[in-house]
Amino acid sequence: MINKKTYKAYCLDLDGTIYRGKDAVEEAAEFVSRLQQQNIEPFFVTNNASMTQQQLKEKMTGFGITAKKERIISSAIAAAKYIKHWYPGKTVYMIGSEGLDQALRQEGLVRVEESADIVLIGLDRAITYDKLATACLEIRKGAVFLSTNKDLAFPSERGFLPANGAITKLVSASTGIEPVFIGKPEIHMLEAIQLELGFSKSEMVMIGDNYDTDIQAGIRFGIDTIHVNTGISSTATVLEKKEQPTFLIENLGYWKI
Amino acid sequence: MINKKTYKAYCLDLDGTIYRGKDAVEEAAEFVSRLQQQNIEPFFVTNNASMTQQQLKEKMTGFGITAKKERIISSAIAAAKYIKHWYPGKTVYMIGSEGLDQALRQEGLVRVEESADIVLIGLDRAITYDKLATACLEIRKGAVFLSTNKDLAFPSERGFLPANGAITKLVSASTGIEPVFIGKPEIHMLEAIQLELGFSKSEMVMIGDNYDTDIQAGIRFGIDTIHVNTGISSTATVLEKKEQPTFLIENLGYWKI
Repeated sequence: MINKKTYKAYCLDLDGTIYRGKDAVEEAAEFVSRLQQQNIEPFFVTNNASMTQQQLKEKMTGFGITAKKERIISSAIAAAKYIKHWYPGKTVYMIGSEGLDQALRQEGLVRVEESADIVLIGLDRAITYDKLATACLEIRKGAVFLSTNKDLAFPSERGFLPANGAITKLVSASTGIEPVFIGKPEIHMLEAIQLELGFSKSEMVMIGDNYDTDIQAGIRFGIDTIHVNTGISSTATVLEKKEQPTFLIENLGYWKI
Repeated sequence: MINKKTYKAYCLDLDGTIYRGKDAVEEAAEFVSRLQQQNIEPFFVTNNASMTQQQLKEKMTGFGITAKKERIISSAIAAAKYIKHWYPGKTVYMIGSEGLDQALRQEGLVRVEESADIVLIGLDRAITYDKLATACLEIRKGAVFLSTNKDLAFPSERGFLPANGAITKLVSASTGIEPVFIGKPEIHMLEAIQLELGFSKSEMVMIGDNYDTDIQAGIRFGIDTIHVNTGISSTATVLEKKEQPTFLIENLGYWKI
């Protein structure tokens, strides 16, 4: 087992790290349980913006993981916190699903249908031309343009479906304006955790399977990173990258606390 | 008046060349009438894929121009002719409006909702997530990907709205596959005219106001081009381009036949 360093804030990715689709990653579930035995509540950091904290908590319960709801940071939660922190009192035109709507309400933000200060786009499977047109018009009138994440496709029973990054692309292509993305590999979700609980960067670690999102987010934010070989980026692939994670392990069973 | 050359096929752009929004370009209307007095029926070549030939004909009638319906080539008409010529007997999954649907029916093409050989995207103001998802799934399964044009925005009373190129961008971003675009600056509309009526390239000329679409289409197809200073690209701008139109005139009043 490796034990090179201990941290206060363990930030764990979900899909590919804690679970793979409908299956738990056993060693990750045990890792979370070991942390909790030492009174450390980990953070769960996911680009998913469609599900609410409660829905994500219940999904993890199904894998035998007891997560603290307020420590589940989705790109929806982080977007709402980002707006509240950087644009206090500003109004939001939102395209997105229940998870995003609830995150905005949780932070007390006001949604409007026109003359918005901010346009925020998340995955919306009830998208219409009118919603997209309004987003374009508001951005052209000067609204700040935010998007939960840049994921282009996600797997479903039917095959790969268009994800939020693709919907966002329609709006950025039409307006010629690029959004600020909240999700990994951007730093905003990790920053939200830091701002809220006052950790120093040396006390934080980002753990994930995806080099381009999880590991990059940690590197860009300037904290330690642990790559696990349980998901999308194999260890072999990661070893070829110019910027390396702080640690590479096969799975979280190999990390002593 | 300039009369450097006469042609058999005068291919005229519409918006910015024949009319500007709701107003006729007077000299262009007179030019069409002068051609017709010499028994030359011009072609009208527009990236618009939403309106039918009949609707475009009626619009021109309002400006005092009598156009032959079958000589109005929209990107919808050209897309249908392109499919019929290059993919005879193949089925089409279509996103688009009445103009595109009618163009497909006119060429006897068969629309399907799944297992399509071809995915064709045109501007659709009744777009849904499900339509976009189906397009992505069919393209990932191997369907040929076509799009009427790459226009990113179009003016409306509310402001600039997302156009077909932006909708197409969603699908190409999500699938990682770029479509074949039918509209100008691609050559397919001019090619459709040539294939159908057997002109040689030296008998054809493309006339338009937009350097990036009209003039580029003519240059790429290898025919003469006439730039008119009545629309989007000013003569001054065009003179700075590396590849020059064959002729530059202020308006079509200056062109003797």
